[in-house]
Amino acid sequence: MYKVKVYVTLRESVLDPQGGAVKRALHTMDYAEVEDVRIGKYMELIVKETANIDQRVDEMCAKLLANTVIEDYRYEIEEVVPS
Amino acid sequence: MYKVKVYVTLRESVLDPQGGAVKRALHTMDYAEVEDVRIGKYMELIVKETANIDQRVDEMCAKLLANTVIEDYRYEIEEVVPS
Repeated sequence: MYKVKVYVTLRESVLDPQGGAVKRALHTMDYAEVEDVRIGKYMELIVKETANIDQRVDEMCAKLLANTVIEDYRYEIEEVVPS
Repeated sequence: MYKVKVYVTLRESVLDPQGGAVKRALHTMDYAEVEDVRIGKYMELIVKETANIDQRVDEMCAKLLANTVIEDYRYEIEEVVPS
């Protein structure tokens, strides 16, 4: 069994209004040291043993989990030993 | 300057309907090997040099970035050398 951690982030060139709102909220709360906030998604998938897991996870990201027009993704695959 | 990576995840005991929907979508797309999906948030903060950065980031998470009733958070602080 594998635990797959997927990180989806907005591309650098894409405006992040949600991040801007969080930044302003942090400034209002006196965390003036925060210069920038970018918000993305983090997903954990539990995946059964399968052939070509790396390729299949990459396909899942490209087809469903990320919108590759405006988002980048990266992932880590960890083997999980069932306890 | 620091880059702070914040990961916010739903607590184990909290139902994740969004994750369930993604899992069903992946099954429909013939990725039957996916057993579970949990969806969280990933945030990147750029933070200026400041005293007690670790404590301040922890406060930001607890007060604003995560809802600690239903979510857990963890973070990593990396020093960034301006290029």
